[in-house]
Amino acid sequence: MSSCADSGHAAIHKMLHPRSVAVVGATPRLQYGGRFLAAMLRSKDRVRVYPVNPKYTELGGVECYPTIEALPESADLAGVIVPHDQVMEVLEACQRKGVGSAIVISAGFAERGTVEGRRLQERLSVFARESGVRVSGPNCLGVANVKDDIWPMASSMSARGAQPAGAIGLVCQSGATAFGPLQTRAADAGIGYSYIISTGNEADLEFADYVRYLLDDPDTRVIAGFIEGLRTADKFVEVARLAADVGKPIVLIKIGRSESGARAAGSHTGALTGSDARFDAICAQYGVTRVEDYDELLEISQLLAQSKKTPQPGIAVVSHSGGVSSLTADMLGARGLQLPALTEQTRAELNDIIKDFGWAANPADLTGFLMREDFPRIVESMIEQPAVGTLVIASAGSEERAREAISLRERSSKNLVYMWTGARGESAALPLLKASSVPIFYTPAGLARGLRSLLAYHDWRDTRLRTGFGSAPAITAEQARVKRELADRPTRVLSEHESKGVLAAWGVRMSREVRTASADEAVQAAELLGYPVVVKVDSPDILHKTEAGVVRLGLADSAQVANAFADVMARARAFDAQASVDGVLVQEMISNAIEVIVGVSRDPQLGPMLLLGIGGVLVEVYQDVSLRRCPITGDEAHAMIDALKGARLLHGYRGRLAADVDALAATLVSVSHLAVHLEDELAELDINPLMVLPAAEGVVAADALVILNGARG
Amino acid sequence: MSSCADSGHAAIHKMLHPRSVAVVGATPRLQYGGRFLAAMLRSKDRVRVYPVNPKYTELGGVECYPTIEALPESADLAGVIVPHDQVMEVLEACQRKGVGSAIVISAGFAERGTVEGRRLQERLSVFARESGVRVSGPNCLGVANVKDDIWPMASSMSARGAQPAGAIGLVCQSGATAFGPLQTRAADAGIGYSYIISTGNEADLEFADYVRYLLDDPDTRVIAGFIEGLRTADKFVEVARLAADVGKPIVLIKIGRSESGARAAGSHTGALTGSDARFDAICAQYGVTRVEDYDELLEISQLLAQSKKTPQPGIAVVSHSGGVSSLTADMLGARGLQLPALTEQTRAELNDIIKDFGWAANPADLTGFLMREDFPRIVESMIEQPAVGTLVIASAGSEERAREAISLRERSSKNLVYMWTGARGESAALPLLKASSVPIFYTPAGLARGLRSLLAYHDWRDTRLRTGFGSAPAITAEQARVKRELADRPTRVLSEHESKGVLAAWGVRMSREVRTASADEAVQAAELLGYPVVVKVDSPDILHKTEAGVVRLGLADSAQVANAFADVMARARAFDAQASVDGVLVQEMISNAIEVIVGVSRDPQLGPMLLLGIGGVLVEVYQDVSLRRCPITGDEAHAMIDALKGARLLHGYRGRLAADVDALAATLVSVSHLAVHLEDELAELDINPLMVLPAAEGVVAADALVILNGARG
Repeated sequence: MSSCADSGHAAIHKMLHPRSVAVVGATPRLQYGGRFLAAMLRSKDRVRVYPVNPKYTELGGVECYPTIEALPESADLAGVIVPHDQVMEVLEACQRKGVGSAIVISAGFAERGTVEGRRLQERLSVFARESGVRVSGPNCLGVANVKDDIWPMASSMSARGAQPAGAIGLVCQSGATAFGPLQTRAADAGIGYSYIISTGNEADLEFADYVRYLLDDPDTRVIAGFIEGLRTADKFVEVARLAADVGKPIVLIKIGRSESGARAAGSHTGALTGSDARFDAICAQYGVTRVEDYDELLEISQLLAQSKKTPQPGIAVVSHSGGVSSLTADMLGARGLQLPALTEQTRAELNDIIKDFGWAANPADLTGFLMREDFPRIVESMIEQPAVGTLVIASAGSEERAREAISLRERSSKNLVYMWTGARGESAALPLLKASSVPIFYTPAGLARGLRSLLAYHDWRDTRLRTGFGSAPAITAEQARVKRELADRPTRVLSEHESKGVLAAWGVRMSREVRTASADEAVQAAELLGYPVVVKVDSPDILHKTEAGVVRLGLADSAQVANAFADVMARARAFDAQASVDGVLVQEMISNAIEVIVGVSRDPQLGPMLLLGIGGVLVEVYQDVSLRRCPITGDEAHAMIDALKGARLLHGYRGRLAADVDALAATLVSVSHLAVHLEDELAELDINPLMVLPAAEGVVAADALVILNGARG
Repeated sequence: MSSCADSGHAAIHKMLHPRSVAVVGATPRLQYGGRFLAAMLRSKDRVRVYPVNPKYTELGGVECYPTIEALPESADLAGVIVPHDQVMEVLEACQRKGVGSAIVISAGFAERGTVEGRRLQERLSVFARESGVRVSGPNCLGVANVKDDIWPMASSMSARGAQPAGAIGLVCQSGATAFGPLQTRAADAGIGYSYIISTGNEADLEFADYVRYLLDDPDTRVIAGFIEGLRTADKFVEVARLAADVGKPIVLIKIGRSESGARAAGSHTGALTGSDARFDAICAQYGVTRVEDYDELLEISQLLAQSKKTPQPGIAVVSHSGGVSSLTADMLGARGLQLPALTEQTRAELNDIIKDFGWAANPADLTGFLMREDFPRIVESMIEQPAVGTLVIASAGSEERAREAISLRERSSKNLVYMWTGARGESAALPLLKASSVPIFYTPAGLARGLRSLLAYHDWRDTRLRTGFGSAPAITAEQARVKRELADRPTRVLSEHESKGVLAAWGVRMSREVRTASADEAVQAAELLGYPVVVKVDSPDILHKTEAGVVRLGLADSAQVANAFADVMARARAFDAQASVDGVLVQEMISNAIEVIVGVSRDPQLGPMLLLGIGGVLVEVYQDVSLRRCPITGDEAHAMIDALKGARLLHGYRGRLAADVDALAATLVSVSHLAVHLEDELAELDINPLMVLPAAEGVVAADALVILNGARG
């Protein structure tokens, strides 16, 4: 990591483990300043707490200081809770005093949506970068070190039970979500945090910086997050890759589901998907589990934190009720999870208990026997089956049953999960289970999402550790020449012929073609290429040639070619009299191929995204596309192909020849490298159609469109 | 309703409102018999309770009788909790004594999966039908009349709080689900039932009978159900239609999500969808809301029971947190719900309170102001906006805020819903809200599913009240003749020519064709029809002609036709030397059309299902189909068309001509009538492809396949 990242690491450490804290803007009232002070004073036996407010000499029983400079030491952390127009002054004082880090609770920055607010936030950003005083916030609620019970934060602590410490690190852009539903419901469910971090407007330290810190923290096994927006995905992707290396899953809520899928864009690729689908693709690519709800975030994070990786994907379900076990198995099956049949031995053991009532099967319905003294025999027999990696107990029960389940989990090398069928507020077994590390779900559908996420995470990580994340090779001399040319171009849109020239430098094979300036030249070109041929106008001003009527396919002789030349030129003029026309392309006609679209679109937040779709009308009607962030590996290229609903069209459907998916995968990888090499120049790229020939015959780009970044005017 | 249905109605009424109950198999132990007695004794001040067990003279402080016959009166209800081999004996005694109804708790019937168990259940069915003693169960847990606090059931009442009475009638095939999660969680959430009914194996009274009863019950406004399987859909559909008439929504969990989608079948239609997709289609067609989880069932039922139908679809969201209001709005938007912009007046009123901090917008973030004394002004201003029909308060809060919200809801003609952000077990406002009729959700995604269901239900019902459910007209003489012919046929599969003859009787237009027996005849036919033509073998033994290679398209002259005749005959012999060949069809070649598949498949449980799919390869690759139960209305036919992802291909995509969707809709209606008229004969029907010509030119069936029920051998 860079030294800037290191200074972030050190600053976050001081925020979470301060030995001394200045509370600037502390008051005796229980508003933000007073609450921050009250929260810190709970740990005054371990942390030196200095209220700062010129109006008081003492607050909450400790000495109050008029300014930061007046403190007896340079604190590890300053909590800043002053009106927004005084924040910079306080931070400058922190710098002079050598304070190690600052949490700015104050609001009134970019979130106001005013020019003044944005300017003030920009000043804060620049100050943090230049001064080295790293800042959390502004407009946040602070952080909590749950395991050491240190709470430098401004939310109310009232009416809340003790927060259990645990293995989940929570990073949340919304303070009221962190110190609201995610805090209270975790406490209610017995789910423990290592730290709770609210990041606010992220003028300096951002989401990924905190995640990066937690990846190094030995007490954090899973990172749970809540994201409203990302400035850029680069750091996010970097920490997600690192998380995979160290084996700490990231589980996220991210806002953005309601954006409309499609956008206005010059290329088909750009128009086909919205930013939310792209974020989903990044989550899948980098092993991040995306969820939608508070409870789902907590339950799945807890499952990931408290589960082992087992070699068996099989799940056994046992319940006291046929209806409960059926619904549970149904939801698991709907998510593609496997419920292996019982072994003969286990079937016999269960039948010995239930004597033909209920079902000795998977799922099992053991009727009331599951609630009684046979429980340990039953669950032990179920979990010990060789094909079972996880036992689900779908029931309620007594304290005695809870103790037996907890004991089995501690002894077993496999996973044990409760699907609690009673009320959430129930007594009996539930408080014991919550206090244990047995993961608990409350609905069959929630359980199924959780177990699916657990298996998917380990599958993904195993693949990733084997294949790596992919990286672009060094740029070649020829590619570098093309890149320089593009950087110097005055206009944004390249003609088909020019676009193909760019692609060729990255090894993409083009249909053979000749650019011609007259009907005679066109006929000569056709004779050279061999009939049938395609004729189309080559113009950077006509992006969608089929719609403009300037393409003619399947021309079989010289007369047809000469006619077509005149026709497409006339149509081009009719379409747009001002269009600059570079000539008329005569191309070989590719048949016996499956058409796909391959494209790149540079998302302002997420970076260069690669798209593959089944070609023709289908890609738009059925939105049948798969997406990855560039670069990709060969493995990912094949996964992109297989993720298409129409993949079987490529694999030889209904007796048709299988297409050359290996060549398609290689082209996807090459285009992803092009996107990385040209990240500064390329806005959008379409290869539409890319013709996928029968196996071993390769792929051919029949049309291409390159659009450069707008900044060049 | 039939008299049988009436007797069911009366029997269910006696089960739920018994004045006297015999508990046959009562014991002093707290197993099923003892629990049933204990539950009934709780209402002994209102219900005469008679334990029946020859071993005791007194149980639980009341006189115990040796037999049913010994009772001093013929009880309204007998609870039967005896070993399964004694059940018939007890029921016969009930009949002799004139007992009004019976709930058989005993297990040991069809659920055992043994021949003996199935026989015993069949005996019970026949007995109920013939004796008039209507039976609930066997293998159930009984029922509860929550509003009058009468519990004829065998589940444990221990460790449960008082069950609130309310407007939801619960009908559940799984007793342990009814008197388990659905009982305890409703109590926990303050959601009230009118009745709880567990139906068990349904040897006599079935799910739909109980729903039918609840439709007449003035205290029940919504029916919540849990279904593991349906014997037939006929009664279910009948009560769903009646529920629409009386305006009582049905909300269901149904097991079956994990079944694999496709099945083995002779027709494409039969193979394309599984039973679960068909059940989903029936739910959509008859206004039933299908959900997946216990909590979802309860929360959505409560929302439907406690909401008004408002003319405005607009939703306003207000929170104390930007993060909470953003996530809530995002989830609502992702479900297609509308959040209208604030009026100028409301914006000004909110800004007057928050002074530029937070957002005066929809969704609104009113920061801490929402928790304080400005709350009534804020929520009143939000809900009174003309475009708003529902206000969502996404927050936690004090008792004072809860009282104000409850008061606003009682005064307003609009809906008010809480999205509670605190813990589920919290004190403060939550207990008050639970005790009120304000619907509560605990997650933004759950709220969005709920509000989407509410709007969808009212939209659906408005349409249905306007357009009706559709019914088949009386069968014509010609159709009746065809029906008789089919009933007499010895074989199951009809050839293309025969299949088209059936369709023609229901007014489906066919491609013009001539069946020929020689190459000369084929050429004559082609001259008559006009070139180009199609030539295919007509055989009931070759179901998929394209795959068998016995179809030749686009034949342009007599030589091609003669060659094709010889070719397809040779290929038919090569495909299956034993195939019976009726001749060779020469057909007009239809071009300029969009191909769809229209079909019927008779589902053993759900009845005749109509399928529409985009034709060719697409329907299978993209599973782009829509389904309805026959018959359908013209409105539903258009809805089926619009439900296809590929609908825009029919509506004139990318400058192509719009297809004749009106003619397609009319054909769908006709085929649905055919399916009703031939319900006893028809197993499967494919029209594949049905060619949809440009607008006003109609549709033409280019191929057809009729498969009759297997019973005919």
